[in-house]
Amino acid sequence: MFHGVIPPLCTPLTDDGEVDTASLERLTGFLLGAGVHGLFVGGSTGEIAQLSDDDRDTALRTVVATAAGQVPVLAGAIDTGTRRVLDHARRAQELGADAVVVTAPFYVGIGEAEVRAHYELLHARLELPVVAYDIPSNVHVKLPSALVGELAQAKVITAVKDSSGDLEGFQKVMNGTAGSGATCLTGSETLADLAMARGADGIVPGLGNVDPHGYVRLYEAARAGDFAAAREEQRRLTALFGIIDVADRGRVGPISAALGAFKAALASRGVIACARAQEPLLPLTADEARRVSALVESAGLSRVG
Amino acid sequence: MFHGVIPPLCTPLTDDGEVDTASLERLTGFLLGAGVHGLFVGGSTGEIAQLSDDDRDTALRTVVATAAGQVPVLAGAIDTGTRRVLDHARRAQELGADAVVVTAPFYVGIGEAEVRAHYELLHARLELPVVAYDIPSNVHVKLPSALVGELAQAKVITAVKDSSGDLEGFQKVMNGTAGSGATCLTGSETLADLAMARGADGIVPGLGNVDPHGYVRLYEAARAGDFAAAREEQRRLTALFGIIDVADRGRVGPISAALGAFKAALASRGVIACARAQEPLLPLTADEARRVSALVESAGLSRVG
Amino acid sequence: MFHGVIPPLCTPLTDDGEVDTASLERLTGFLLGAGVHGLFVGGSTGEIAQLSDDDRDTALRTVVATAAGQVPVLAGAIDTGTRRVLDHARRAQELGADAVVVTAPFYVGIGEAEVRAHYELLHARLELPVVAYDIPSNVHVKLPSALVGELAQAKVITAVKDSSGDLEGFQKVMNGTAGSGATCLTGSETLADLAMARGADGIVPGLGNVDPHGYVRLYEAARAGDFAAAREEQRRLTALFGIIDVADRGRVGPISAALGAFKAALASRGVIACARAQEPLLPLTADEARRVSALVESAGLSRVG
Amino acid sequence: MFHGVIPPLCTPLTDDGEVDTASLERLTGFLLGAGVHGLFVGGSTGEIAQLSDDDRDTALRTVVATAAGQVPVLAGAIDTGTRRVLDHARRAQELGADAVVVTAPFYVGIGEAEVRAHYELLHARLELPVVAYDIPSNVHVKLPSALVGELAQAKVITAVKDSSGDLEGFQKVMNGTAGSGATCLTGSETLADLAMARGADGIVPGLGNVDPHGYVRLYEAARAGDFAAAREEQRRLTALFGIIDVADRGRVGPISAALGAFKAALASRGVIACARAQEPLLPLTADEARRVSALVESAGLSRVG
Repeated sequence: MFHGVIPPLCTPLTDDGEVDTASLERLTGFLLGAGVHGLFVGGSTGEIAQLSDDDRDTALRTVVATAAGQVPVLAGAIDTGTRRVLDHARRAQELGADAVVVTAPFYVGIGEAEVRAHYELLHARLELPVVAYDIPSNVHVKLPSALVGELAQAKVITAVKDSSGDLEGFQKVMNGTAGSGATCLTGSETLADLAMARGADGIVPGLGNVDPHGYVRLYEAARAGDFAAAREEQRRLTALFGIIDVADRGRVGPISAALGAFKAALASRGVIACARAQEPLLPLTADEARRVSALVESAGLSRVG
Repeated sequence: MFHGVIPPLCTPLTDDGEVDTASLERLTGFLLGAGVHGLFVGGSTGEIAQLSDDDRDTALRTVVATAAGQVPVLAGAIDTGTRRVLDHARRAQELGADAVVVTAPFYVGIGEAEVRAHYELLHARLELPVVAYDIPSNVHVKLPSALVGELAQAKVITAVKDSSGDLEGFQKVMNGTAGSGATCLTGSETLADLAMARGADGIVPGLGNVDPHGYVRLYEAARAGDFAAAREEQRRLTALFGIIDVADRGRVGPISAALGAFKAALASRGVIACARAQEPLLPLTADEARRVSALVESAGLSRVG
Repeated sequence: MFHGVIPPLCTPLTDDGEVDTASLERLTGFLLGAGVHGLFVGGSTGEIAQLSDDDRDTALRTVVATAAGQVPVLAGAIDTGTRRVLDHARRAQELGADAVVVTAPFYVGIGEAEVRAHYELLHARLELPVVAYDIPSNVHVKLPSALVGELAQAKVITAVKDSSGDLEGFQKVMNGTAGSGATCLTGSETLADLAMARGADGIVPGLGNVDPHGYVRLYEAARAGDFAAAREEQRRLTALFGIIDVADRGRVGPISAALGAFKAALASRGVIACARAQEPLLPLTADEARRVSALVESAGLSRVG
Repeated sequence: MFHGVIPPLCTPLTDDGEVDTASLERLTGFLLGAGVHGLFVGGSTGEIAQLSDDDRDTALRTVVATAAGQVPVLAGAIDTGTRRVLDHARRAQELGADAVVVTAPFYVGIGEAEVRAHYELLHARLELPVVAYDIPSNVHVKLPSALVGELAQAKVITAVKDSSGDLEGFQKVMNGTAGSGATCLTGSETLADLAMARGADGIVPGLGNVDPHGYVRLYEAARAGDFAAAREEQRRLTALFGIIDVADRGRVGPISAALGAFKAALASRGVIACARAQEPLLPLTADEARRVSALVESAGLSRVG
């Protein structure tokens, strides 16, 4: 059902912190124009953790309307417990999402049986397909690969997005879900060529906001079996990914550094109007933003439109 | 402003998972009757991570109405980002809470500057006092004691609740907030006597749902300087706290084990009608619940009413 | 068998990095003069991780000779596997140690069954008593309190040294070893009064090198049931412990900061000749050493001899 | 200098726990016969953490003698501090090793400056080349990729062995060491084809004890640019690597499970006489060993000799 390049969209904001729907429409159009195969609204890169419920709705509504059915729209339903996720997922369905992306419960310490119950309950009560989202850096628990395999074989989940950075684990997931029809997506910006070589069905790269054409080329090369070309594209994209290391990490945390860089790059390409991130995240300094722009240019990316 | 024993209330549920307001009124009355000095609605023990927004509202409304101003009611406003916390906090204010309890942002990786900005923004935009909540087991970052001290001295926070289990860090917090007027509350069930001996202003024990009289006695003894009596009470309560180790941890995770035990104990004392926890948490087995009952009895606790 | 204040001795070095036996004799005499109840050679504070086998022998031989049977001498036998620990322990016995202090195996990932086997094998093959050493910050696994209790009840271990900083866990250890005759020692510099209030038999404080009189007073007060006096002494010692926060932690790691401070303080008190630490640890800067000296003075400590 | 397949040799033991030199000679010959390009004695797989100094010497002496200069022999010099590593490294040089493999200091908490000093001191005082060994699962600190690059460019280290499982980090290491002449080796059993595709110079797989022919084929295919063939070989080897998941992990820890499986497989292939591991590691049960044998057979591996 899902495959190819599915960028987790940034949520552009106005200077006063509201969702900038004009910029978000432009970003959506930019991604569609590059040939992406799906759109993921409400990931970490979309600042789901910082947006209010209203902001989340506005973002999803805008992307669904702009995409107009050209590609599937996945919506994050990320929260600490099953009932909360259900409420978000039902709202996403009303707003036109094609699937929801769901992590294990977090904040309190749960066990594998509760994780299993969480997905089974969601599946039983939702009409939308559920994508299991493995992001141990945020959830602080890794989805066990055996459990993912079982949930896929039982059709409880439709796909898995692996943002663990652990290719060995992702291989186990691909082995365990084989034959289930579930698709396996990597969330890695820098190991996408390798994940594709191992049999991934698609890529969900935050950096895909900035250079969707690059990831589409990488994906198409890999699909055609030309892994040398995929690797060359990956090499360029990995260098570009250096933009997340520009911010002074003594000043800001990792998420401000990464999101700030993506947004600064999108602003420098003329896709979005303003690079601010949602509170309490901190933006790049003007000097850091200039260094991001320089890296964007040296990756061969020009201004859009 | 806040002091003494402030139990984080369990949220009793009906058999079909709705908030059991009759049981919650009974629990609130039971705690007030024991002489607690405040009520905390919406902590981990209150299953805030599992309750829907509607359920959270119902619980807070019920407790505020039952307390009827006899003691302050603190409400958890626990979410991943500042705007989301603001929305919860404003709702809590509408419903009559006297303060909100707020962790650092979680789920995405943030730095100290963002944590500081988070609390400063909340303080600037809220009328309610803010209690900083340090619970590294859930948030996966410890609130730096120096930052807590600065926020207290600047009147950005009114109190701190320390559930880190780290008495050395709590001592630093008490030293750093000295003279600010901020109160320092420990969240430890088992080190409460020691925290009081070191100068804590109060205790927020999940086990206080089950044995509020015990914690009130411990607190009063410590306030009177009788640390030997406080220690004796602590010894009994620590043994009672063994109820959280009854559940088979190969079957369920730590939060199911702890909440399941608290609720089984409350049911066995006749305070609440049903011991189920909110999905995806799993309840104790009937046999485990019987073992909890036996521990409750051997701690000298009888059926209520 | 072991009780009271048992400082983990620093290992003074000469300017070229050899064990400075004259300074070590002076340090030993200084501690004995303060009334300590035992001496621990070869802990982290003794730089066991940095000393060669020959240096370790020299240090132990020197302390044993200087102590001359006045108090027991414990020797660290810290290594990654059972056979290696056995070799160190037998050497310690030859050199006159009264007991060996042994962590769980580290470096490779082991399970509880292997930890149990480790201690049982050591007990079976050694004549010296074995002290179990729980220091999760170094070993990266916590000794399970239930296991410690079983090993104590089976007389496999004679004592436990808890440097976990986790008083709740230490309480479980004390409960589990009760009646076994095993003694329970805390390694905490800053929670020693509380550990004593809960029933600890002794204290193994690195800071005891610098202010052994203070810890002896704290211990004696607590033994006499005067916990208020113990707390006052603890308060002064906790302030003094601030010397470990003097070093610029952007420049050096935690162990260089702590050891560097202890040695700078000992040098400023005239107990040892040179404050250098063993490679690759880095010493304090001259300015940092001056700030340590100032803190030592403001804690009321004067030059010795 | 180093390249290709360099298995970290198991250390076969007799029934009473002594080094079984006959089996070790046979294992060495088996590996050389398969065409490996180097031999690594004294890694985790060689139970360096469990072997006594004498056992380590015996193992290294045996392998050096059997290899007789056909391929380079690398020796682990794994210990907690610089002086200790120096002593091990000098001994390894006396015994004929061609290089030493050295981790960052461990057990105590050190900073980056101390790690840098550690490698610089070793380089200054040793004649043997130093291979930096990044194994965060054991050392609990990751070697920063920028530091590895600097040490390589300064000729302080000759090679790096990456056992982090983090291909993104390994890519940074390969980028940072480019042009320095340092060789980059992966320690991954299951991502070896991908590491080779990204430009690794060699592989140090524990599973290479069991199936050296497979890893040599994988390496040769990758060197020839035939990554499809490398991937096929990898697939078979990854399935074989399932032997480390046979042991009941409720009974034993990860290192007993992995080493026990390697040794059981080598015994079932007739290469070594006895599958026991060194204390306190626990062997597989007879039933587990039979299941390992079955997996070995289904991977197409037959009895040797």
